[in-house]
Amino acid sequence: MAKKLTSRSVDYSKWYNELVVQADLAENSAVRGCMIIKPYGYAIWEKMQAALDKMFKATGHQNAYFPLFVPKSLFEAEEKNAEGFAKECAVVTHYRLTNDPDKPGKLRVDPQAKLEEELVVRPTSEAIIWNTYKNWIQSYRDLPILLNQWANVVRWEMRTRLFLRTAEFLWQEGHTAHETQAEAMAEARQMNQVYADFVENFLAIPVIQGVKTPSERFAGAEETFCIEALMQDGKALQAGTSHFLGQNFAKAFDVKFANKEGGLDYVWATSWGVSTRLMGALIMTHSDDNGLVLPPNLAPIQVGIVPIYKSEEQRVAIAAVAEQIKAELFALDISVDFDNRDAFKPGYKFNAFEIKGVPIRLAIGPRDLENEQVELARRDTLEKSTVKLSDLAAHITQLLAEMQQQLFEKAKAFRAEHTTEVDDYATFKELLETKGGFIAAHWDGTAETEEAIKKETKATIRCIPLAAESQPGSCIYSGKASQQRVLFAKAY
Amino acid sequence: MAKKLTSRSVDYSKWYNELVVQADLAENSAVRGCMIIKPYGYAIWEKMQAALDKMFKATGHQNAYFPLFVPKSLFEAEEKNAEGFAKECAVVTHYRLTNDPDKPGKLRVDPQAKLEEELVVRPTSEAIIWNTYKNWIQSYRDLPILLNQWANVVRWEMRTRLFLRTAEFLWQEGHTAHETQAEAMAEARQMNQVYADFVENFLAIPVIQGVKTPSERFAGAEETFCIEALMQDGKALQAGTSHFLGQNFAKAFDVKFANKEGGLDYVWATSWGVSTRLMGALIMTHSDDNGLVLPPNLAPIQVGIVPIYKSEEQRVAIAAVAEQIKAELFALDISVDFDNRDAFKPGYKFNAFEIKGVPIRLAIGPRDLENEQVELARRDTLEKSTVKLSDLAAHITQLLAEMQQQLFEKAKAFRAEHTTEVDDYATFKELLETKGGFIAAHWDGTAETEEAIKKETKATIRCIPLAAESQPGSCIYSGKASQQRVLFAKAY
Repeated sequence: MAKKLTSRSVDYSKWYNELVVQADLAENSAVRGCMIIKPYGYAIWEKMQAALDKMFKATGHQNAYFPLFVPKSLFEAEEKNAEGFAKECAVVTHYRLTNDPDKPGKLRVDPQAKLEEELVVRPTSEAIIWNTYKNWIQSYRDLPILLNQWANVVRWEMRTRLFLRTAEFLWQEGHTAHETQAEAMAEARQMNQVYADFVENFLAIPVIQGVKTPSERFAGAEETFCIEALMQDGKALQAGTSHFLGQNFAKAFDVKFANKEGGLDYVWATSWGVSTRLMGALIMTHSDDNGLVLPPNLAPIQVGIVPIYKSEEQRVAIAAVAEQIKAELFALDISVDFDNRDAFKPGYKFNAFEIKGVPIRLAIGPRDLENEQVELARRDTLEKSTVKLSDLAAHITQLLAEMQQQLFEKAKAFRAEHTTEVDDYATFKELLETKGGFIAAHWDGTAETEEAIKKETKATIRCIPLAAESQPGSCIYSGKASQQRVLFAKAY
Repeated sequence: MAKKLTSRSVDYSKWYNELVVQADLAENSAVRGCMIIKPYGYAIWEKMQAALDKMFKATGHQNAYFPLFVPKSLFEAEEKNAEGFAKECAVVTHYRLTNDPDKPGKLRVDPQAKLEEELVVRPTSEAIIWNTYKNWIQSYRDLPILLNQWANVVRWEMRTRLFLRTAEFLWQEGHTAHETQAEAMAEARQMNQVYADFVENFLAIPVIQGVKTPSERFAGAEETFCIEALMQDGKALQAGTSHFLGQNFAKAFDVKFANKEGGLDYVWATSWGVSTRLMGALIMTHSDDNGLVLPPNLAPIQVGIVPIYKSEEQRVAIAAVAEQIKAELFALDISVDFDNRDAFKPGYKFNAFEIKGVPIRLAIGPRDLENEQVELARRDTLEKSTVKLSDLAAHITQLLAEMQQQLFEKAKAFRAEHTTEVDDYATFKELLETKGGFIAAHWDGTAETEEAIKKETKATIRCIPLAAESQPGSCIYSGKASQQRVLFAKAY
């Protein structure tokens, strides 16, 4: 039986860590900073993958696969990108182990098997991919190239947390090549929109679409579009980014194409990605002190059924009804887990479905059978009701759609309550320490001010919102003129 | 325009290498031995993954994800497994790059960032997984564990070939834990059957199910079940293996469980995998001198449509019919590519569909429009016929199923022609150099004989077939008694 979770109000961070483990989502491994994604957590990730993959294909992208390793000479070719990732690279230097002459039965790295050139385990794949695109692109007829890959990447983070920041993580990375600046910019914007639609419709997490400030851009990008979400502890989380890379990688790898006019141009590029970090966003947006809360669209089990019986005769009769419900829901593409294990009590099963965030739980006892009804409990509101068997499938179909929508609305209301317009630095600092959330404030547009605020308050500019209206004002820090509020927050 | 392929009869190996590149399946990368799987190749792999994943789930397995890295101390715990893979391990020794003081703008491995313990890039995941199962398994109630992961693995091969043998490859690896020896053995056999069904029904490749001899077993296994296929050049290819691992990993990682009788037992294990190597098997089984031939079940494009027109008016009229055909076939879940690009001639498009192995090609010209018909070409037999538009969808549906079956039958007939019973060593050696194929011969069951034959002829025992009848005889090499013929072949 799972232990009771630490309450969010007591220790949010501890609550998160306990929840991830108790809901069977992931756990730490023997490799520092690398996680094991457990079957239940992976099933949620698979649902995310399937939905995203469909959206990528619908927007004209294809999947491919590029090598895990990047030779050091390629890695360092685009200088800003290299500089941005050099400090967190796992490096392969040898290709063989051999018996350790000093320790019988043990192995050591074979000093004879040193690689001529070290290989970086990809922290991101621009370098290896643009080195390949060089061979694929000669003319405008070869463009655009619209590829995505599902892969693992490694960034040697010093402080790691399950899903949020791990040394190895799973992600998808899109890498596109275009004839014109405008087309590449449109692609980066399009993928920002795809991410926003996906996260809002499937994860039920409202996001702010915006661009990063120059200092928060992806290393090697000329513009980074992002979607920013707000967690229940008032901290922001960057949920997905798409980058307009200009001609930086084309220049670093000398990728030119014969344009329609017969001249030679450097190719324009984008890249974009979301990762298993989305699992962290999902958990922290909806869950409560009883465990995980999942939006129905992503729940591996949408309906859990618990039988309540004393005699074997009752057990058999209830199982017959449960199996009938399961078949009826299966036909409607609703996933059901009927937990008919005799070795576990109903209370244990209730808890298990609750901590795992199963959206709807049905309980069926002997009296329910008599009355041709079931007890239905909603995971999000914890409300219980009695539903006639004859109405059950229609009721559940509608309820799942409602819950999906209501989770989104609830998160949106929370975000609205935790987004504050602030016009002076004292209030800004106080709010950050008390209410938290997004703070919409004027900023003078300089990296110096951004850096100073970050140093003094730990808040960063999460984004310059795309939807924000122009509104003259003065910077909360320097007092200089500003044309638009930007969103500050402490962030994951 | 693609160059004409080298003919199989001239140089089979060259034909294969050219085909893989010209059909846009894969290419070599800047990283020695690592391939780039191109979109068309990856689309075929995705179809394999989808079909297999469904079969794994239907047999009770779930997906999970374990770390890419294996700490050296875990890697060496199961000695036979470690010994089997030590010679081909990529090893991460450092976690940071830094500016090279001698070369401005260049990076070098930071000598300050040496790992305390080296990390092996997984060549297979038994070690990291059994180290995890140790924490998951206390009692018989925790068993069985039936997991699979889709992942990349690295084995530092010296001689590599696209798909067939690459330093990094994609695969799935199942890892299961059981209470009893019988249950684990049944699981290993079950997965052998799943692989056979998958490869025969989807890849249309007939396979022999068998067990490996002790010297050909997976390092750390007590029994290795395999499926063996025969390529058109008469060489065998191991297409998938499932291993009964006994209690070897449980003992190496001290994984015990409280059994139903209250005692403590070591857990029984299996592991099983297929990889992107299957792409190589697919290519080499069916393709011809004109390019790839794909079984319809795995073809990303099942029907290609080429319009033949002179005027813009004709182009528009043909496009209308082509779009109608496409919609009709789409509704039947048949994938269609209508290549209406004006910049390319029909001959170019014919060749492109041909080299990519698109099962059915339709050509539509002005006269076809008048007669309400299309020209249909089968990729497998290269036969052409004329089909009335009114019959087209039904005809194609049936033809795709027929082609799937006929490709399998053709490959099976080829295998039958190239499987020879041999009773003396002279004939054995001669056949290997001439006809090739599987040679069913008696073997005395000793590793010495197996090794001697391998050394003298390069033929290995591919498997001891499960279906073979007991038949007394004498070993072709030693003359000693034997109870069953085994299958010899030169192999990939």
